Amino acid sequence: MNLDARQLLPAGACSVAAQAWRGGHLAALTEVVPDEVPVALVYNGISHAVMLASPADLEDFALGFSLAERIVRHPRDIHDIEIEQDGAGIVVAMQVAAGALARLKQDRRARTGRTGCGLCGVESLRRFGDDTADVAPCRALPAPAPGAVLQPAALRRAMAQLASRQHLHHATGGTHAAGWAAPDGTLTCLREDVGRHNALDKLVGAVARSGALAEGGFAVVTSRASYEMVQKAARAGIGLLAAVSAPTALAVRLAERAGVTLAGFVRDDRYVLYSHPQRLAAAT
Amino acid sequence: MNLDARQLLPAGACSVAAQAWRGGHLAALTEVVPDEVPVALVYNGISHAVMLASPADLEDFALGFSLAERIVRHPRDIHDIEIEQDGAGIVVAMQVAAGALARLKQDRRARTGRTGCGLCGVESLRRFGDDTADVAPCRALPAPAPGAVLQPAALRRAMAQLASRQHLHHATGGTHAAGWAAPDGTLTCLREDVGRHNALDKLVGAVARSGALAEGGFAVVTSRASYEMVQKAARAGIGLLAAVSAPTALAVRLAERAGVTLAGFVRDDRYVLYSHPQRLAAAT
Repeated sequence: MNLDARQLLPAGACSVAAQAWRGGHLAALTEVVPDEVPVALVYNGISHAVMLASPADLEDFALGFSLAERIVRHPRDIHDIEIEQDGAGIVVAMQVAAGALARLKQDRRARTGRTGCGLCGVESLRRFGDDTADVAPCRALPAPAPGAVLQPAALRRAMAQLASRQHLHHATGGTHAAGWAAPDGTLTCLREDVGRHNALDKLVGAVARSGALAEGGFAVVTSRASYEMVQKAARAGIGLLAAVSAPTALAVRLAERAGVTLAGFVRDDRYVLYSHPQRLAAAT
Repeated sequence: MNLDARQLLPAGACSVAAQAWRGGHLAALTEVVPDEVPVALVYNGISHAVMLASPADLEDFALGFSLAERIVRHPRDIHDIEIEQDGAGIVVAMQVAAGALARLKQDRRARTGRTGCGLCGVESLRRFGDDTADVAPCRALPAPAPGAVLQPAALRRAMAQLASRQHLHHATGGTHAAGWAAPDGTLTCLREDVGRHNALDKLVGAVARSGALAEGGFAVVTSRASYEMVQKAARAGIGLLAAVSAPTALAVRLAERAGVTLAGFVRDDRYVLYSHPQRLAAAT
């Protein structure tokens, strides 16, 4: 790929040589695919995690991840972010407030192995309560603000705008998006990533930084709504999460407990509400 | 949900009360959604990871995960698997061979924090080589056997059978599937999960246990092909991975290096080959 071609691609996409099978024959072609890059998140010199992500909007990703993981409580707790290429990967080096660093170190001491549960980083069910929604780090979830009662048309508008503005997905067919909509459904922020969790982290980082989160509105995502997606929304104080596809049962239970309105299968003029329907008007 | 209703649902699905917005009105209904359960993987009493997964085929999951993570080298290294409910979660307690346990302990000593990179569990880019495909644990990847040259129709047949037999997905609209096909495209094994990585782990576990992996064939998945999906295939010795959606650039590079044929956008009589096209005949 030459530099001119690269300039035509959205951030996070690149082209590869491939062969397409069409009509009984193979033909060489150039395919545009999403980048996927190991991104190391480093806090005050301590390398904490390596995530595979789309290499775009990494400052938003760093902030949103740090909020979702409760390493920082507020955007101002991150004093500085530097982004550097390092071999095939990218290092996001943050300087965080002393309190955040203390929480990070305490959290790391409590973990000694692989942490497959993306939710809490627990390595044992012992750290789960007797109800999964009562996982220790979730207990303190504050209920999101009630917010304005939204009209059903707002969900449709936001989802349509999300679908039409996924530039990385339009180029590659292989990425997810998360968007933030004003109460009337006007999309005010959109972030894309090869991972749906990363896309939501990036969105949360962007809207937390801009102050849009405090002004009311809701989040829309192009994916399913798993437990981790609902938890990221709840931890960010998002009152309504609208997903184009299905939720899981665990996500529904968490949304119910955390005070989050969870809408699934949001397509055209239809959707299904799984929890806290009071944030949506019952008739247009 | 009453017990009679539960008996009609496929394993891994449950029903929840919801409200559907249709034609300008809300109506109460019962929705079938996928379960998502924390599953603790325990080796000889050591709790190693908690994964959120569909609670079905967990013995396959345990074996496939253990192979993908290189904790065990062969199904016979797992001497016993016991599955027990534990509060809201499930414990999969394995007894593994002494050599496997030693590898696990050594690996755990090398890690001290959150391991966001699902690939290698690395927490720092320092453990990546100067090419991402050269991540240390990948260097020793043996190239999969060349296998028989497949006809393009085999991909179409396998993908069609995969789509038609996703019972959990048909019930919930919210799960992924991975299937194993004989060289002629006949699907011989299918596993489903809320997570696409889990679905592939379950498939690998099932076909490794049955011996089907050694008899030739290929894998088909309903998802995109990320780096981790290609790596799981490569580590299992799978020569061809066919995905319904897009690969990432990193996945393409790994497939190229690992000797895996990667096919994407496999839909009807079309697909795109990103690496090692020699496993497919160029004309019907």
